[in-house]
Amino acid sequence: MAEAANGDGNAKTMTIIVTKGTLDWAYPPFILATTAAAMGVEVTMFFTFYGLSLLQKKLDLQVSPLGNPAMKMPMMGMHMGMPNIVAMLPGVEAGATAMMKNMIKNKGVASVEELREAAIEADVKIIACQMTMDLFELKTEDMIPGVALGGAATYMEKALASDINLYI
Amino acid sequence: MAEAANGDGNAKTMTIIVTKGTLDWAYPPFILATTAAAMGVEVTMFFTFYGLSLLQKKLDLQVSPLGNPAMKMPMMGMHMGMPNIVAMLPGVEAGATAMMKNMIKNKGVASVEELREAAIEADVKIIACQMTMDLFELKTEDMIPGVALGGAATYMEKALASDINLYI
Amino acid sequence: MAEAANGDGNAKTMTIIVTKGTLDWAYPPFILATTAAAMGVEVTMFFTFYGLSLLQKKLDLQVSPLGNPAMKMPMMGMHMGMPNIVAMLPGVEAGATAMMKNMIKNKGVASVEELREAAIEADVKIIACQMTMDLFELKTEDMIPGVALGGAATYMEKALASDINLYI
Repeated sequence: MAEAANGDGNAKTMTIIVTKGTLDWAYPPFILATTAAAMGVEVTMFFTFYGLSLLQKKLDLQVSPLGNPAMKMPMMGMHMGMPNIVAMLPGVEAGATAMMKNMIKNKGVASVEELREAAIEADVKIIACQMTMDLFELKTEDMIPGVALGGAATYMEKALASDINLYI
Repeated sequence: MAEAANGDGNAKTMTIIVTKGTLDWAYPPFILATTAAAMGVEVTMFFTFYGLSLLQKKLDLQVSPLGNPAMKMPMMGMHMGMPNIVAMLPGVEAGATAMMKNMIKNKGVASVEELREAAIEADVKIIACQMTMDLFELKTEDMIPGVALGGAATYMEKALASDINLYI
Repeated sequence: MAEAANGDGNAKTMTIIVTKGTLDWAYPPFILATTAAAMGVEVTMFFTFYGLSLLQKKLDLQVSPLGNPAMKMPMMGMHMGMPNIVAMLPGVEAGATAMMKNMIKNKGVASVEELREAAIEADVKIIACQMTMDLFELKTEDMIPGVALGGAATYMEKALASDINLYI
């Protein structure tokens, strides 16, 4: 694609640092990565901190309305937030997660698993932060295949040569 | 402005992805956008997820001290955080919001509404994420005029040609 | 270093906007800044909002599991999250902070204080946001020496001329 090639004939490149591991924040990095890849951009995703949970074989992502007064779900024609005193009750986080998953499915939006699969098929490069892996005692065998390990220096080398660098 | 023109005579450009919709996190994107525009930089703001609430005609932004132990407000010469067991009580979020709004006003800092108005007057381009609009059942008629709709591909095209790309 | 020099012989440059002030989110900016500096990259860190607390002489950083269902600490061979109804109890935030500090120390990872010191020794430029300083009534005398004051325009000038710009 014309837009995705720079002056010297090389493809455009993008890096994304992925630090969040909740259901809602799993979407932006995978949507941007798959869209960019479809446009011919070479994408490297660097997963670190809570973002590493997005690489687990079996995803168990949740969303929390607690402390996020901007989260207002459409319900019965209105947009409702949830008081914190309700949101902190056991089961409510699971309920909000189920509600958001339902909403995503009903609107025909892809699941995180599907987007992740699409990213891998589009040759998006997946790097897991070695330091966080050690810190949180995470193992590559619990993760999807094709994950490379790297550190901040690995990221920096890619980012210095990239057209777009985002921290999510 | 000299700094805001690149080699081939075009203006410098910046994109900002705006994903948060609370009172505190509404400031960074609008302050950066208006400052950049005042320096002659062409700015595109892409509002998605909870950030879309910043485009509503009538803003009702709140702030929550819950789960943010770094939020310490100046009170009686000290800086006080708020225990979560207090922060989760009904009314406390509204109180913290009122306190922060008061603080902002007393210090002569512009309101989010004023900064948003300034951004629009400075020709900052406002794009709302179509997918999130559908997902959360938001309508353009509830939003300020002049909002364009777009997707991740719209964003990517702008970002690939921009000097600064931030994800907030 | 070859990677850190661009065509016209100048060093590569990076800016980082630091907006978070918790123990966990203090790591990414300082790790990236010190790694980049070690590779010969000129780094400017712009501290604003809750990020300003990272510049205080005596750090008192905390972490909260509240509303972050993705935070799962390794415990007795498992990875455990914490129900919000437990996380909001007085003392639990302090406990989670102590647990994370222990984990960091046991794994031989540097403390935030050590990383901050390393950044300063590597000539990373530290700018504190004047507007937030006024808003939260923070004073330079409570901060580490060598902090410069600046605003969004100061940031923009640096960012327009930089190879990597991140918002954390």
